[in-house]
Amino acid sequence: MEAAALALIERDMAEVETLLMSVTYSQVDMVTDIGQHLVQAGGKRLRPALYLISAKGLQTDTGLDQAIVVAAAIELIHMATLVHDDVIDHASTRRGIPTANSRWGDHPSVLAGDYLFARAFALLAKTNDNRVMKELAEVVCSLCEGEILQANSAFLADQSEDDYAMRIAKKTADFLAASCQLGAMAAGMEAAAVQAVRQYGYLVGLAFQVTDDILDFTASAPQLGKPVGGDLAQGIITLPVIRALEVSPHREELRMAIVARDMSDPVLNRCLAIVRDCDAIEYSYSKVQAQLREAIAGLPASLAPEAQRALVAIADFVGLRKF
Amino acid sequence: MEAAALALIERDMAEVETLLMSVTYSQVDMVTDIGQHLVQAGGKRLRPALYLISAKGLQTDTGLDQAIVVAAAIELIHMATLVHDDVIDHASTRRGIPTANSRWGDHPSVLAGDYLFARAFALLAKTNDNRVMKELAEVVCSLCEGEILQANSAFLADQSEDDYAMRIAKKTADFLAASCQLGAMAAGMEAAAVQAVRQYGYLVGLAFQVTDDILDFTASAPQLGKPVGGDLAQGIITLPVIRALEVSPHREELRMAIVARDMSDPVLNRCLAIVRDCDAIEYSYSKVQAQLREAIAGLPASLAPEAQRALVAIADFVGLRKF
Repeated sequence: MEAAALALIERDMAEVETLLMSVTYSQVDMVTDIGQHLVQAGGKRLRPALYLISAKGLQTDTGLDQAIVVAAAIELIHMATLVHDDVIDHASTRRGIPTANSRWGDHPSVLAGDYLFARAFALLAKTNDNRVMKELAEVVCSLCEGEILQANSAFLADQSEDDYAMRIAKKTADFLAASCQLGAMAAGMEAAAVQAVRQYGYLVGLAFQVTDDILDFTASAPQLGKPVGGDLAQGIITLPVIRALEVSPHREELRMAIVARDMSDPVLNRCLAIVRDCDAIEYSYSKVQAQLREAIAGLPASLAPEAQRALVAIADFVGLRKF
Repeated sequence: MEAAALALIERDMAEVETLLMSVTYSQVDMVTDIGQHLVQAGGKRLRPALYLISAKGLQTDTGLDQAIVVAAAIELIHMATLVHDDVIDHASTRRGIPTANSRWGDHPSVLAGDYLFARAFALLAKTNDNRVMKELAEVVCSLCEGEILQANSAFLADQSEDDYAMRIAKKTADFLAASCQLGAMAAGMEAAAVQAVRQYGYLVGLAFQVTDDILDFTASAPQLGKPVGGDLAQGIITLPVIRALEVSPHREELRMAIVARDMSDPVLNRCLAIVRDCDAIEYSYSKVQAQLREAIAGLPASLAPEAQRALVAIADFVGLRKF
C-alpha cells in the first residue's frame, strides 16, 4: 500500500497482526496451523486499513484500543470468506502460495473458515458496540448473496453493467463501505460525514473489484499469484467481457464460446484475446478512474488532513495496482 | 419431544419457527430457497428448547421477547453447522429428506451455511447482551475444533474413551451446555444455579451424542434418515467401537479392518456385526443412563417446578429416542 496511507496507521496495523496471530491459536493444532498459515500469507489488509484510517477521521492522534479489535475482526471475516471461496473454486494458489484447501483439504478448510468467522464475532462481542456486530454480520450476508449471484450468472452472456455492479457491490463494495463507515463512527463523526466516508469506501470497493477483474485479463500469472483468465474459465462475466460482448468485432464468437460453456485452454485463450483486442480494458479502466475521482471528491471536509491524505493515497493505490 | 417439555414452551417455539422463516428470507432467491428448505426440514429443535425452558427457570410465566431471538439464533447456528457437515460428508439425505448440497450443490451450500451463521449473529446483535454473543461464538469455535479432531482421528484404532469424550464435548455437549447456561442467565438465576443448569446441558449433550452414535449401529436406515453404519464407514471411532475393540472376541479382526481403511460394504457389515454382537451397545447405553441420572440429580432446587419437569422430560427423551 502507499507509504502515505501506511505511516498513519503503521503502529496500529502491527498490533492488528499480533492480535491476528494470537486469536488464530487453538487447542487443536490443525486449526492453529491453518489460521496462522492464512495470517502469514498476508494480503493487502485493505479493509482493516480503511477502518483504522477512518477511525482517525477527526483527530489522527486518537488512540482507540477498541479499534484494533474491530480491525482484526474485519480481517478475520475477510480471511474466512477467502478460505471458503478457495474451497468452492478448487483454487490451488492465492497470492502465490498454496491455499488452505490444497494443503489441508476441503474438509478442514471449510471448518477453519467457520472457526475464523466465529473468532471474529467473539472479538466483536468484546467491543460492547452492537452496531459494529450488526453491520459486519450484514456484510457477511451480502458477501454470500454476491457469491451466489455470481455463481448463478456463470456463463450467462446477457448481463448488463447494472447486473455486474449489483454483484460486485455485494461481493466487495459493501464490505469496504462498512469498514469505512464503522471507522468514521468510531471517530465520532457526524452522521452526514459518516455517510460520506461510507460512500468513499463503496466507490473504492467498486473500483477495487473492477481492477481485480481487469487484472484477470492483463496481469501475468506470477503477478496474480493464480492462473490468468481464471474468472472467465469459470464463466464469470466481468465488466471487460460485458463490454467486449457489446463492442468487439468478434462479439458473436465470444458470446457463442460463453454460451457453449466450454472453456478449454484454446477457447479460453481466444476469448482472452478478443477481450484484450477491443476497448474493453480501456473502458473498464475509465470506469475505475471515474469511481475513484468521485470517491475522493466526496470525502467530507471535516476529515483531519492526515486521514484525508491517507484515503486519497489508498484510492490512488487501487487505481494503479498491478497485482 | 416429550409432551411435558413441549407444553411449557409451545407458544415460544411457534414464535421461533416464524422468526426462522422470516430471517432466512433473502433478496437472492436461491439463498431463501436453501434457508427455508432447512427450516422446513425440521429437526428436534433441542437446543432452542433447552434454552427456552432454562430461560423460564425461576418463573415459568415470564415472557421474554429477547428469548425468542436468542433461541432462533441458536437454531440458525445449529442449522449452519449441519449444512457444512453435510457438504463435508457428501451426505445426500438428512432426516429422510435431500440435503442442501445434494439439491443445490456444494458451492451454494457452503455459502448458505455462512449466510445462516451471519444471520444468527445479526440477530444476536439485536439483544444488546454481549455475553450471549461471546458464548455462542465460542461454541462455534468448539464445534469446528471437535469436527476437525474427529476427522483427524478417523481410522485410528487406538483411541481411549477420554479422547472420545473430549471430541463429543466439543462437537455436541458444549453447545447444549451453552444453550442451558444462557437460558438460566436470561432467567436471572444465581451463578451457582446457572452453573448447575449448564452442567445438566453438558451431560445431556454427552448422552445425546452417545445415543446418536449407538443408533448408527442399531437403527434402521428409514429411522435414521441416512445410511446405517455411516460413522464407521467414514472411519469415525465412536464409543461402541472403542468398547468392542476392548472386549469383543473378534477385536483383532475389527482393529485390522479399521486400520486398513477399507470400509467396503462387506467389511463394514462384518464390523457392524462385531460391534452389535458384544456388549458394546449395552455398555454405551449404561453410560447414557449414568449421564442422564447425573444430569437430573444436579438440577438446582431453585428451578420452577414446571421447568424442572420439562428438563427431566428432555433427559428422558434423550435416553429413549430411537431416531
